[in-house]
Amino acid sequence: MSDSMSTEIRLASRPTGWPTPDNFETAVISLPELAEGEVRVANEFLSVDPYMRGRMNDAKSYAEPYALGEVMTGAAVGRVIESRTAEISVGDAVLHHLGWRSVSQGPAASFRVVQDISGVPLSAYLGILGMTAYTAYVGLLEIAGLKEGDNVFVSGAAGAVGSAAGQIARLKGASRVIGSAGTAEKVEQLKGKYGFAAAFNYKDAPVREQLRAAAPEGIDVYFDNVGGEHLEAALDVFNRGGRAALCGAISSYNSTEAPVGPRNMANMITQGLSLKGFTVGFYPELHEAFINDMSRWLDSGEIVFEETVIEGLENSVHGFLELMRGANTGKMVIKL
Amino acid sequence: MSDSMSTEIRLASRPTGWPTPDNFETAVISLPELAEGEVRVANEFLSVDPYMRGRMNDAKSYAEPYALGEVMTGAAVGRVIESRTAEISVGDAVLHHLGWRSVSQGPAASFRVVQDISGVPLSAYLGILGMTAYTAYVGLLEIAGLKEGDNVFVSGAAGAVGSAAGQIARLKGASRVIGSAGTAEKVEQLKGKYGFAAAFNYKDAPVREQLRAAAPEGIDVYFDNVGGEHLEAALDVFNRGGRAALCGAISSYNSTEAPVGPRNMANMITQGLSLKGFTVGFYPELHEAFINDMSRWLDSGEIVFEETVIEGLENSVHGFLELMRGANTGKMVIKL
Repeated sequence: MSDSMSTEIRLASRPTGWPTPDNFETAVISLPELAEGEVRVANEFLSVDPYMRGRMNDAKSYAEPYALGEVMTGAAVGRVIESRTAEISVGDAVLHHLGWRSVSQGPAASFRVVQDISGVPLSAYLGILGMTAYTAYVGLLEIAGLKEGDNVFVSGAAGAVGSAAGQIARLKGASRVIGSAGTAEKVEQLKGKYGFAAAFNYKDAPVREQLRAAAPEGIDVYFDNVGGEHLEAALDVFNRGGRAALCGAISSYNSTEAPVGPRNMANMITQGLSLKGFTVGFYPELHEAFINDMSRWLDSGEIVFEETVIEGLENSVHGFLELMRGANTGKMVIKL
Repeated sequence: MSDSMSTEIRLASRPTGWPTPDNFETAVISLPELAEGEVRVANEFLSVDPYMRGRMNDAKSYAEPYALGEVMTGAAVGRVIESRTAEISVGDAVLHHLGWRSVSQGPAASFRVVQDISGVPLSAYLGILGMTAYTAYVGLLEIAGLKEGDNVFVSGAAGAVGSAAGQIARLKGASRVIGSAGTAEKVEQLKGKYGFAAAFNYKDAPVREQLRAAAPEGIDVYFDNVGGEHLEAALDVFNRGGRAALCGAISSYNSTEAPVGPRNMANMITQGLSLKGFTVGFYPELHEAFINDMSRWLDSGEIVFEETVIEGLENSVHGFLELMRGANTGKMVIKL
């Protein structure tokens, strides 16, 4: 395909419950010539993220809903193939948010040049060096107020945000880090690769029982990617003054019924608990500290990460649906 | 009865659901002679409070459960009738926590001398100058972080804590204060006597609908005395960054089934909301500021309060059960 053509994936219809391939459509467009100040980028990796499911609904949220017919926008990294600005050169690696398409172009301000780091694939800017791990960092430090010695529980811990959260908690002085995941393989990975002190498969037995067993001294911080039964269990196992950062509720994203809320909210009063929801875009203040910490941890090998790479733009929808089902370990990206 | 006798009301058995008179027993005891350093107090007013219901259960809470056979302890005010300490004189008015009995005695450290204020009954130290209004003060200022210009919703607003919360919010610069209550008379009282900008009867229509209509610009702070449907409604009507102080959940105290939790917890993430439970005993820091503010507001007539007074120690249980049913307006006290 010529560099002046781009294949894009658009939202065709809004899903009820689980999305299906029919909710998306593929189009090939001819790109206009670059205007002064613009660059053209051949994308190498696209990000697929749980929050995109929310944007497929026509409902108030922190991000505008996708319009029908709109390209599935989101984070992507690629390399500049044509430039009409002095700020960005051909060959530069860039991060942008123009989403699920093979070639992106636009004004220089839409692209951020990132460093090629030896031994680290460009896709890291979608995960461990990107919004994904920054979400974990903000949730623990800013939202939940993690302190040294805290016992920390992370749900959905084998996912991209969760695996970063567990490691960041440990590196920031947590006493004991506990994770949940949905397969035996993921549980082994949490205890091995990611250094969680304890981990369990939430499908094996009630979360409350497994969390109590894994946290004999209770928990002080809960990083919630799941909601539902996990949140209710955390409210029962919290020590006095426990704090939860509510980051995601993947357990309910594809439900067509209103989820049942935690039945033990009264614990919040008796135990002085706090729950705080957040989306990372509202907390830019810690970004420099995050980049400094994470670069150091990556250099020293103190933090590790995993990616689930799906090959081919034409498999983006498949990858996104697999993500919704929890088929990924670590950050899921589409490689073009 | 001689001053050396005391009539006390004790917990006889633990209720399942609503307490009944059978859960209590009355005993008359002969008091030992005062030891050195002790005082004897003829109680004038006893406090009955919703939190006492929680202590009747045999369950972990912020306050220890009452033991079977134990006197129903709680706040009371009275006047010293005998003293063997130089710190406290006969005739002094004192506040203590020795509960539902006609005569209390013990070491001077168990009693705090309070000022007789012209025009203010001693029972005020159980309400507007006591833990009740201090709970409202802490919840708004410390827990919910009330700021000038906030729109504030208070549930159970005709109760002792709620009516104080609504007035304190207004006096601390809230833009619009909205209250809910359970009878038409209470709703009128909120709008008239207590100066709420809007109020509704939660029994008239779904809370969500009535709250939306009363708060066309949304709410920023929610002071929750009720839980359940009220909390769920607040989560829907909150503006971005909304904060709730969870003080009580009277809707569930006497339920034998686990209450249904809010089904819209996902709003917490998309709207960046926070919920924080508290009990006032953990927040002594603001007490001096509270006494200064409240004394000034009472002097100037900027704050008003109401009491529901039940006459006679023998009617304490009746009063407590009426409180649970919401029969009080403002602070309920037992007058001896």
